[in-house]
Amino acid sequence: MKINENYSKLEGNYLFATVASKVNEFKATHKGKNIINMGIGDVTGPLCEAVIKNLNSAVLDMADAETFKGYGPYRGYNFLIEQIVELYNRRNISLIESEVFISDGAKSDCANILNIFGANQTVLIPDPVYPAYMDTNIMCGNKILFADATRSNKFLPLPNQNLNVDIIYICSPNNPTGATYNKNQLEKWVDYANEQDAIIIFDAAYKDFIEDENLPKSIFEVPKAKTCAIEICSFSKTAGFTGTRCGYTIIPKELTKCGVTLKDMWLRHQSSNYNGTSYIIQKGASAVFSQEGQQQIKETLNHYKENAQIMCKTMDEMGAFYTGGKNSPYLWFECFNSLNSWEFFDVMLNELNIVGTPGQGFGKNGKNFFRLTAFGTKENTQEAMNRIKQYF
Amino acid sequence: MKINENYSKLEGNYLFATVASKVNEFKATHKGKNIINMGIGDVTGPLCEAVIKNLNSAVLDMADAETFKGYGPYRGYNFLIEQIVELYNRRNISLIESEVFISDGAKSDCANILNIFGANQTVLIPDPVYPAYMDTNIMCGNKILFADATRSNKFLPLPNQNLNVDIIYICSPNNPTGATYNKNQLEKWVDYANEQDAIIIFDAAYKDFIEDENLPKSIFEVPKAKTCAIEICSFSKTAGFTGTRCGYTIIPKELTKCGVTLKDMWLRHQSSNYNGTSYIIQKGASAVFSQEGQQQIKETLNHYKENAQIMCKTMDEMGAFYTGGKNSPYLWFECFNSLNSWEFFDVMLNELNIVGTPGQGFGKNGKNFFRLTAFGTKENTQEAMNRIKQYF
Repeated sequence: MKINENYSKLEGNYLFATVASKVNEFKATHKGKNIINMGIGDVTGPLCEAVIKNLNSAVLDMADAETFKGYGPYRGYNFLIEQIVELYNRRNISLIESEVFISDGAKSDCANILNIFGANQTVLIPDPVYPAYMDTNIMCGNKILFADATRSNKFLPLPNQNLNVDIIYICSPNNPTGATYNKNQLEKWVDYANEQDAIIIFDAAYKDFIEDENLPKSIFEVPKAKTCAIEICSFSKTAGFTGTRCGYTIIPKELTKCGVTLKDMWLRHQSSNYNGTSYIIQKGASAVFSQEGQQQIKETLNHYKENAQIMCKTMDEMGAFYTGGKNSPYLWFECFNSLNSWEFFDVMLNELNIVGTPGQGFGKNGKNFFRLTAFGTKENTQEAMNRIKQYF
Repeated sequence: MKINENYSKLEGNYLFATVASKVNEFKATHKGKNIINMGIGDVTGPLCEAVIKNLNSAVLDMADAETFKGYGPYRGYNFLIEQIVELYNRRNISLIESEVFISDGAKSDCANILNIFGANQTVLIPDPVYPAYMDTNIMCGNKILFADATRSNKFLPLPNQNLNVDIIYICSPNNPTGATYNKNQLEKWVDYANEQDAIIIFDAAYKDFIEDENLPKSIFEVPKAKTCAIEICSFSKTAGFTGTRCGYTIIPKELTKCGVTLKDMWLRHQSSNYNGTSYIIQKGASAVFSQEGQQQIKETLNHYKENAQIMCKTMDEMGAFYTGGKNSPYLWFECFNSLNSWEFFDVMLNELNIVGTPGQGFGKNGKNFFRLTAFGTKENTQEAMNRIKQYF
């Protein structure tokens, strides 16, 4: 009996554990301090009324044999898929139902999609980025190359024509940097992927924070993307579903490799490895697309966006270098006073009583950067910015 | 760019598609016939009141910022895990919380658990069995051997000491045969696995159909199982969660391979590939363990069990060879009149207007057998048995 030896190559990801332990220690020794948590990458607002209404009605359906739902379709219910197809069609992206797969969230699909490609891929991952891309690729033994995101490229790296890769991860708006590619930049990635016969895994989890109408919310706004890209979407940040769990993945029918249609492979994968997303949750998610739902999620998103604006305003006043804040719930800025990200974390916690996330935890290029999130209250966000302005 | 070539080795699984198409054709040409569906492997009853109550209350929690839940723990909420630990402890199986992992259902875990073992395993799968075991192992390129379940071993194969294997699948009570191992038989498998340094993946999805108190509901009733077995459980058949989606997996702390504790590997897997099961659904599942919930699910289970008894009675009267029916919602019997399973399917549909599932679809050893399920109404079950008794 062997085990998967790649797991031994995983580095302990102690980022959030270390943050939590430092915060707890500080709290224990400094009772009564007003600590503002801007480290959390999680939503805080409740689900909107339209979603709650649909969840309630779906629970009722499950209480009556006449309306009870057993096993659902592997790809998800049509009532939800049709709304996603309509959403894309309204944005002039043609889509058919069999290209859409409902999931229990973007994270599962981001990881499990690797199964259809098999072993020994070369993958290109931005640095810094959401740590799960790297961990899942280490686990399956893929060779990892990095696309360096730095101050000089405004944390939006472009293709290096000298690299040969099989799979490219793009997260736009990015976690943690909030940096968002424009259409021209995405075109460069799409052309590169098509030339290389590579696949782009496009993580669009933060798309609904995009305010600038010129910035693409979907990689399929680049027409040639249909032959190279898989788009992974989530209701988590769009509609506060982080604990409710629902997402969807788009695999265009044009996306074939070695003569095989990848959406058919993925359907086969999901039929064997998954049994569909809960009916109740899918019904809840479908309310997000109603007129009422759209209006309500917009209010919550606007609340977060206002917090982000408050943060940007402070950074502008201080002349700081930052990305995000616009089109993203994340503000990513260079640590003041030439501190590295863990030194800066300590000052922020001990002197300013603000919790943020050291950039080092997202990759080597984050070592002098810091992430703050817009998911708190307006009052706390403003208060934190006042403290920062006063101190630095 | 390569793709996973193992997918090309998958055989089209057209069993249920072929069944559905034959049924639809018959319906179209025989309007008004009272067709009784006993092919479905899905529950039909609604969720019980206690579950509905908890689901409603969890939805309310999500509507209020004070009680709203964002990302949950990767292993699941303690309120649910603690109840599972208690359940096992009451059955004299010691268990700690870190050995329990809440999932979105047994199917996902049955498939994804293979990731921690890595490539090139030799797996032993019963024939006939639930097709997903085979498909997921083909997809990851494992070598598959079969444990032949036949009339001569009452569809309960025992270890063949001459075979060297890494992973052993056991489903007891079995799908499709309903055959259930006793403790002595499971001990043989556990001893064999321990000697071989192999892992048993024990699928206990149907455990709550077990009536005979001498039959083990958990492989951990065999003490030495803790060094070789992973148990995968589901609320699907226990509490009608097929469309609601929740399950749990037990990996004992004693289970180590190559010096690595497998529960730690699985936690690492779930942390990177999963983001937890929906809070709402976990809250619903937790009601199953309340006194009220236990009473209510028992009523639904008893309804299915009564149907199974009706089927057994008919088979006994007819002198048929069968397994299941007892301790299982499935009745598995040898086709009458020496028909093979597809010929028998046609007679059942065309002459008796009963839909069942041809055994061939679950493996070569099912070619002369047929599966009927107890998930219908009592009236239909009785009527179907009358038709069978009259015709054959």
